[in-house]
Amino acid sequence: MTTADGQHESKRLALGVLASGTGTNFDAIAAAIDDGRLQADIAVLICNRTEAKVLAKAKTRGIHCLLIPHAEFPDRETFDTAVADALEAAGTELVVLAGFDRIVTAALLDRFTNRMVNIHPALLPAFKGTDAQAQAADYGVAIAGATVHFVDEHMDHGPIIVQAAVPVAPGEDAHTVQQRILAQEHRIYPYAIQLFAEGRLRVDGRNVVIDGRPAPDDSALISPPIPW
Amino acid sequence: MTTADGQHESKRLALGVLASGTGTNFDAIAAAIDDGRLQADIAVLICNRTEAKVLAKAKTRGIHCLLIPHAEFPDRETFDTAVADALEAAGTELVVLAGFDRIVTAALLDRFTNRMVNIHPALLPAFKGTDAQAQAADYGVAIAGATVHFVDEHMDHGPIIVQAAVPVAPGEDAHTVQQRILAQEHRIYPYAIQLFAEGRLRVDGRNVVIDGRPAPDDSALISPPIPW
Repeated sequence: MTTADGQHESKRLALGVLASGTGTNFDAIAAAIDDGRLQADIAVLICNRTEAKVLAKAKTRGIHCLLIPHAEFPDRETFDTAVADALEAAGTELVVLAGFDRIVTAALLDRFTNRMVNIHPALLPAFKGTDAQAQAADYGVAIAGATVHFVDEHMDHGPIIVQAAVPVAPGEDAHTVQQRILAQEHRIYPYAIQLFAEGRLRVDGRNVVIDGRPAPDDSALISPPIPW
Repeated sequence: MTTADGQHESKRLALGVLASGTGTNFDAIAAAIDDGRLQADIAVLICNRTEAKVLAKAKTRGIHCLLIPHAEFPDRETFDTAVADALEAAGTELVVLAGFDRIVTAALLDRFTNRMVNIHPALLPAFKGTDAQAQAADYGVAIAGATVHFVDEHMDHGPIIVQAAVPVAPGEDAHTVQQRILAQEHRIYPYAIQLFAEGRLRVDGRNVVIDGRPAPDDSALISPPIPW
């Protein structure tokens, strides 16, 4: 679409957000929409847990919310089909996993190939699965991080879109490390979605090619920092 | 030792460097010694390959060099015992693996427990083993890096001292990525050795506790960079 003054105006991307918990990444995405960094709308928020705080947050924002309790379905596939139907009914163009605690099966994934993203609190492929921050702390890493990736049939495995690295000191309090990673999650997730909204992402095997991506520079994060 | 003006003067750390190849990390360590960043001396350079370029480099610097060809020994243990004997004869306090292409067995390791360091061109525990940069490229990571760690009985596994993260763009030329990582290796390896020389490292299980380590700050490396 072109406006009267000749500017190209992108159609806003319709997001379907799947969440199970507190919804801090939901908050970050909604805030990025509010302040114009993210040209998208949350078409539907689907939650699988009655008690999840994210439900009230979405309702307060006037977002279309659906509670689809997984426990009421006989198996994963039936649940995933119901979720996929609801996502499509809402016009979802990109599925955003935001603390969604169910494994996604082909019944859902195949209907959103290369149109489903997830965020994981580690520098993948390190520390897949649950309690990634605790895994990193137990290993004694000096650098931790977060990864936004397309979802494929393997857990925490699909092509990587954006990563963020942060320093950690071995022996640090786990909550402190988690909050430091979360602060970066809240930056990179809306940004990765905006790249998708701008049509700049292309999946080529394991690579996510980003149109207009600047060449990497000499910047580095060193932990502990070097005083030289 | 205390000098006449009351300054504490550390005894210089005696390094035993094991190398098999070009010796770019050897160069970086020698340069850091030359310019005073690293208070250490290379007591001996031991090389297991006749054709390795690092030998000529060390000789040019007047460093005590030993060629100990592994192929002339009946097994790993016999070779490692000869290496350990040579390291001890030179007064080695810290063993520095600098592109050493042999697996280190207990015959050598047990004589330098928590006194042997290695550098690996990846953010461990990701991409252990050979061709780490190629492994990272094949995976399609957006952030790669390097790790200095104490050596234990498992490959690329011991407690982590310093890590450096660098941005990469999926699909980049492998040599470009390797050079970007190498530039950081050449910074963090001398620094990690200097921390050891200052007596500031203590191994506590998987954690390397660094005396006087500054608390991690809010710095982060994001790849690709976010324009917001």
